[in-house]
Amino acid sequence: MELDEIQAVLESFSHRDWQQADEDAGPIRFAMVGLGWWTRDEALPAVEDSTLCETTVVVSGSTEKTEAVIDEHESVHTGLTYEEFGAGEAADAYDAVYVCTPNARHLEFVDIAADQGKAVLCEKPMEATVERAEEIVDSCRNADVTAMIAYRMHTEPAIRRARELLRAGVIGDPIHAHSDMSQGIIGWGADQWRLDPDRAGYGTSVMDLGIYSVNTTRFVLGRDPIAVQSMMHSDHEFFSAVPDEVAAFTVAFEDDIYATCTASQNAHLNSYLRIVGSEGVIRIEPAFHGESSLDVTSGETTIDVDTDQVNQMEAEFDYFADCFLSDREPYATPEHGLLDMRTLAAIYESNESAETIEI
Amino acid sequence: MELDEIQAVLESFSHRDWQQADEDAGPIRFAMVGLGWWTRDEALPAVEDSTLCETTVVVSGSTEKTEAVIDEHESVHTGLTYEEFGAGEAADAYDAVYVCTPNARHLEFVDIAADQGKAVLCEKPMEATVERAEEIVDSCRNADVTAMIAYRMHTEPAIRRARELLRAGVIGDPIHAHSDMSQGIIGWGADQWRLDPDRAGYGTSVMDLGIYSVNTTRFVLGRDPIAVQSMMHSDHEFFSAVPDEVAAFTVAFEDDIYATCTASQNAHLNSYLRIVGSEGVIRIEPAFHGESSLDVTSGETTIDVDTDQVNQMEAEFDYFADCFLSDREPYATPEHGLLDMRTLAAIYESNESAETIEI
Repeated sequence: MELDEIQAVLESFSHRDWQQADEDAGPIRFAMVGLGWWTRDEALPAVEDSTLCETTVVVSGSTEKTEAVIDEHESVHTGLTYEEFGAGEAADAYDAVYVCTPNARHLEFVDIAADQGKAVLCEKPMEATVERAEEIVDSCRNADVTAMIAYRMHTEPAIRRARELLRAGVIGDPIHAHSDMSQGIIGWGADQWRLDPDRAGYGTSVMDLGIYSVNTTRFVLGRDPIAVQSMMHSDHEFFSAVPDEVAAFTVAFEDDIYATCTASQNAHLNSYLRIVGSEGVIRIEPAFHGESSLDVTSGETTIDVDTDQVNQMEAEFDYFADCFLSDREPYATPEHGLLDMRTLAAIYESNESAETIEI
Repeated sequence: MELDEIQAVLESFSHRDWQQADEDAGPIRFAMVGLGWWTRDEALPAVEDSTLCETTVVVSGSTEKTEAVIDEHESVHTGLTYEEFGAGEAADAYDAVYVCTPNARHLEFVDIAADQGKAVLCEKPMEATVERAEEIVDSCRNADVTAMIAYRMHTEPAIRRARELLRAGVIGDPIHAHSDMSQGIIGWGADQWRLDPDRAGYGTSVMDLGIYSVNTTRFVLGRDPIAVQSMMHSDHEFFSAVPDEVAAFTVAFEDDIYATCTASQNAHLNSYLRIVGSEGVIRIEPAFHGESSLDVTSGETTIDVDTDQVNQMEAEFDYFADCFLSDREPYATPEHGLLDMRTLAAIYESNESAETIEI
């Protein structure tokens, strides 16, 4: 494609191409469950800045944390313990529940929210195991509530534009994908649920970081994973309880497109996603650590695609609220998340068996 | 590392850091065996521009080709058929033999050259199969001649600087490597030895392109491959005789460093090599298609490393001649090449068996 054709493709996709509800249709009132650093430093400020959402209730095992959040955020008026939340206290004060606890407690709080008939936004990975993720699917389906797994890359403009450029044929047929998400967490201290299989699930680097490569590739390609291979190891004692201080894995997607991926919680901060096609290359770098930058080569032409820099969590919450308010199903349903859970489990199984695992 | 420290590391490595012989110690006179486009368009002009080499004899099945080369290159005075070369005609007119035939004929011409006591520069991959590569090792060892497998990346300045930066600790410990080499050869026509297993060996994309990822990663890391996984397929009828129109493979190197790689002969031209370390990232992009560009991130600092742009084939021939003239063993001995052949064979075997293969 020529430069002007690529630009014509890009111009037809706006920033919030997903928006359907009126800007004043909200706000949707949230209870946030789990007050770790992600909720406090990322989710709460993002919701404060959002168009369609507000946080009214926070739920934590620590009264100190709930009180601090109430002090810091004007809209938050109620702090609950996990028991109080489970007992339905202040349930009239929220419409939706954001679950951001350690993976192995997602099911418990999704169940409560679904029983209360609340909309559910559940962090990824969905749960610690495939079996528990299946229970989340059943729970949300039986309660017939709006439910979404919190993939913030789905509403990142660079990722959405990449997906549309690929669909428009700008790089021809997709051939390979390459992705890495790595960071160093030793400085965060050893007392972390991400290092504890009882709370994190099958491991740490693939569960926590590799899922970005798996799911974002899946989203951009518009194809599902069908088989995986992997190698992983933990040498550093910090990672002695999990198998994947470092992991490398290949995911075969539909139409025989292979994505080669790496993930490590003990490396320099690095992330990218690249799709090599028959007629060009899409590069997103950085990709997954809060800001994303896109460039595309089509034939002889390479352009830096100028995408809006957005707060990814704000866009994610507004997208979820938009689906709720316009009564449509979010893209990342629990069923969507479950396929990723099966893929992650297969990646760990492949390392154990040294065999290719079909999903 | 700080910027000035990285620059200090770089300043201690010069362009031809490998050069030991005097510039006027040559020339080494070459017989070039096989006059395909690589020899004519790349090797012959490179040798013409080189410091230590000249071509005096060319060997081909086509008298038309040998005559054309004699017309075009002043130093070339003799054209031989393969039979004449085998019979030792004009053997006094060359000191070294460059073997650039289809893979499955390398052994035959290496044997002749070694029997004649000539130095041997043999294109990669060494041969069509591991067994035949082993025969090349034996042949060169028994004849006690200078012998090298033609890995042009070993004398590419961007690759050498990357290797030295890694050794100097600029990116901390290496954690992952990522590499791709892809191109589109359908336009070259179907009558190609690269598509014929009898002449190419196990396949096409991994044999012809993947070897760059395997060997260059090995060279930069300074570590050997120990196990592999792979997936590959051929869908397009152009590739019906080989298993790897597209391939994805992971190579585990010593110290549990995983390299995730892709290769395709039916994709957009693309190549890169990236090493993610504990404290930084080395990126070489483009990497393998004739020019190479390097940048390095160390902690918060990223610099474009300004390496000399050289003719890679000229540097390779001069390096080989330099080893010959200073009576030292080249880095890429036949034994070195044999390990790559075992790795390539294991990559194909892993696809067949759907299992991890140790090398």
